[in-house]
Amino acid sequence: MDTRVEIIVYDGFDELDAVGPYEVFEMAEENGADLDTSLVTLLETDRITAAHGLRLEPEGTLSRDDPADIVVVPGGGWNDRRPVGARAEAERGAIPEALRDLHAAGTTVAGVCTGGMLLARAGLTEGRPSVTHRGALDELHASGANVVDARVVDDGDVVTAGGITSGLDLALHLVERVAGEAVAEDVAAQMEYDRRGDVIEAED
Amino acid sequence: MDTRVEIIVYDGFDELDAVGPYEVFEMAEENGADLDTSLVTLLETDRITAAHGLRLEPEGTLSRDDPADIVVVPGGGWNDRRPVGARAEAERGAIPEALRDLHAAGTTVAGVCTGGMLLARAGLTEGRPSVTHRGALDELHASGANVVDARVVDDGDVVTAGGITSGLDLALHLVERVAGEAVAEDVAAQMEYDRRGDVIEAED
Repeated sequence: MDTRVEIIVYDGFDELDAVGPYEVFEMAEENGADLDTSLVTLLETDRITAAHGLRLEPEGTLSRDDPADIVVVPGGGWNDRRPVGARAEAERGAIPEALRDLHAAGTTVAGVCTGGMLLARAGLTEGRPSVTHRGALDELHASGANVVDARVVDDGDVVTAGGITSGLDLALHLVERVAGEAVAEDVAAQMEYDRRGDVIEAED
Repeated sequence: MDTRVEIIVYDGFDELDAVGPYEVFEMAEENGADLDTSLVTLLETDRITAAHGLRLEPEGTLSRDDPADIVVVPGGGWNDRRPVGARAEAERGAIPEALRDLHAAGTTVAGVCTGGMLLARAGLTEGRPSVTHRGALDELHASGANVVDARVVDDGDVVTAGGITSGLDLALHLVERVAGEAVAEDVAAQMEYDRRGDVIEAED
């Protein structure tokens, strides 16, 4: 059965935080991985405007009754405290609440960049090894997380990455988990991307 | 005066080929570079569907009467000969023709990935140092280009990059040309991206 991946987008999300992993998962699928990836929103909408102005049309809404296996959460606008973006979503609370529910139901949650702060707001990184964009590490620490200096931190059902382009390594790591190293290496080669090796897998 | 950058998108373009450079240029602007970047299409349309399914709303059309300083051309779907994408655009000819006109009018054309094959089809890489996605190097060579083994090849008004993620390095290199090394380094740091050093600048 396909591993379902949902990447949740919202107004003010950082373009690459989401599109990087999206392309990695889609290419893994083209390379034989049993994945089904979509860009979704919390509530139905025709259009999302990202942090730098990219306007995209989402493919559907976040599955709640039949949760995805993996939900990827991009960041955006956190460090410069933009009125629209990850910080605003953390304050609003609806996305963190949905993430908490999905995690409780067994979904692996994956934060890219300051998407990790939305996991923190959901209480999902408390006491757990995790990372976020460099500019938000102090806040992640203050939230009670066990901050780890790595590009990707895999703590099983909570996976986090550093800033922006770290999302490529997070997605390649998840592809490796789901479909094996060969597929991840093929995707990285096709993207002409040199994977960064510092993936920390937390011990159980 | 702002340096105007237009990134031309078309059905079947590779998401990261375009969104990577877009985010680099937008972040450079936030870091003080006098840049004005937009995602455009050749003809007016409400929606473009990229190679892996991302649907986006372009910001306008390619400037013809008052050309941009830099036009970035993503690739997509070339190597697997998709019916929609860079190969189809090369055969159709309208984008290559526009690129030839813009280049003749003084615009710097920048090909990312198999976007370089659209420059080749326009005759702009003939006898000139250039590169494209690994999977299309033979075709680039056969088109009469002087293929160079590098991630980014800067031949002045024709700049080309290797596959997909090479577009990040191409854009950072162009930011460096326009706004200096410090801005490019700041953007790379904020994106937590390790720039790849092999930028070949062709000698005049």
